Amino acid sequence: MDPHLHRLPPGPVDLRALTTDDTSGFDGGKSSGKQALAALGDELSDLQERLFAERTTGSGRRVLLVLQGMDTSGKGGVLRHTVGLVDPQGVKITSFKAPTAEERKHRFLWRIRNALPQPGYIGVFDRSHYEDVLIVRVHGLAEPATIESRYDQINEFEAELAAEGVVIVKCMLHVSADEQRARLLARLDNEDKYWKFNPSDVDERAHWGDYRAAYEIALERTNTEVAPWYVVPSDKKWYRNLVIGGLLLEHLRGMALRWPAADFDVDEQRRRLLDEAPVA
Amino acid sequence: MDPHLHRLPPGPVDLRALTTDDTSGFDGGKSSGKQALAALGDELSDLQERLFAERTTGSGRRVLLVLQGMDTSGKGGVLRHTVGLVDPQGVKITSFKAPTAEERKHRFLWRIRNALPQPGYIGVFDRSHYEDVLIVRVHGLAEPATIESRYDQINEFEAELAAEGVVIVKCMLHVSADEQRARLLARLDNEDKYWKFNPSDVDERAHWGDYRAAYEIALERTNTEVAPWYVVPSDKKWYRNLVIGGLLLEHLRGMALRWPAADFDVDEQRRRLLDEAPVA
Repeated sequence: MDPHLHRLPPGPVDLRALTTDDTSGFDGGKSSGKQALAALGDELSDLQERLFAERTTGSGRRVLLVLQGMDTSGKGGVLRHTVGLVDPQGVKITSFKAPTAEERKHRFLWRIRNALPQPGYIGVFDRSHYEDVLIVRVHGLAEPATIESRYDQINEFEAELAAEGVVIVKCMLHVSADEQRARLLARLDNEDKYWKFNPSDVDERAHWGDYRAAYEIALERTNTEVAPWYVVPSDKKWYRNLVIGGLLLEHLRGMALRWPAADFDVDEQRRRLLDEAPVA
Repeated sequence: MDPHLHRLPPGPVDLRALTTDDTSGFDGGKSSGKQALAALGDELSDLQERLFAERTTGSGRRVLLVLQGMDTSGKGGVLRHTVGLVDPQGVKITSFKAPTAEERKHRFLWRIRNALPQPGYIGVFDRSHYEDVLIVRVHGLAEPATIESRYDQINEFEAELAAEGVVIVKCMLHVSADEQRARLLARLDNEDKYWKFNPSDVDERAHWGDYRAAYEIALERTNTEVAPWYVVPSDKKWYRNLVIGGLLLEHLRGMALRWPAADFDVDEQRRRLLDEAPVA
């Protein structure tokens, strides 16, 4: 599948014109889609390990996968099924909730900077700094001028990260309102899923149009060359997971990761082990 | 396999009497061992999700898996192959290195407390507070009286954690000196593994006997009822991964994890969704 199929083109964004239940670019259904995702595992794992190895050379390179989307769009599912394909040792996941009292004392990017992956890691943001121009805008949780200034701040921040060697992959998990309703109802039909349900998720549906507008503005204004947006059709979970797996793979491939050279004399170390006194 | 097969009995410890290449309790070899581990995945995942769900009820329960062992004993392999079976979202891995200048300003358990998993999580320590009575003892990095006092401090600390709902699983990955040598040589034979090799690993082999003695003391003195040790034969990687998978599973089963009940009126929420005004 062409991983850039769902890359958002520059310019104004109309989310209603972007399908949520597309499976284009993949010639098959759910079961072959799941197999195709699993088949990415070996190469993803290999590249992730190269990235992890590279940090021993002092390289600053790392990956940051940003997951945004309405409730039930499947950020957790991507973590489990796609991010779960690689060694958890090299992954740093941060789930951003409503800011704490401590976090509120600082500028909005403070907690984001604190959660950045170290070199060599794949960092994943389950929600992110984009909440500060999404829910904050929808519910007027900050002054309009403050919100207005954040788009540029985000772009500067992401450009700075990119310059430091952070490969940024931003995915908007695009679901329809109908699919969200079906998923919320499914949670109510299954006692194992009650814990995932929050009555406030239903309240938020009344603001669906406002969220869409806030997303459209955010997507348009932060769709930069160094940190473009991908709008991932997410009504079909397997397709969403597969597309994001493909994007992760493509970005790792693009890093041309090499195994670090030895910074010691290999033959000498081999001799030391072969000639050593008995160890016991 | 009986998960308690490798539980260390109380009393003096003689590591030379505990085999490193045992595969007892499992009727098969490498390939069926790998399959057996994969077969634990579904139940491990289910129980991990229940644990993760439980945190929404205010429960303090969580799991702490402590991995200790000589270089090359496979702490990283356990992270990848065993811990990697569950949703990375619910896992917190901390790799402890030599303490930083900041960490050195505090008591030895300070950085450990800071790295504890939150309720609902499976925390994994790749090395741990035990380094403070292992490498520190072998190389005399603290006063003997200081080291001497640490065993009791560790027991008090772990008892405190257990009382707060932390289920502690401590595994010593037991490899032979010969197997370690073979693994170090293998790293030197493969350019993809140079990054894992450190000449100081060869230096440390000269202290093998001292490490064994330090482990024996630590294992004996911290082998408590609430936080017993498991000495896992680790010369065979697949067996090591399987044993630790079985231990994790057994401890999660022992927690009798239930899905949280709804803290809202399920029918009312269903009606709200079914009767809502059109969302778009």
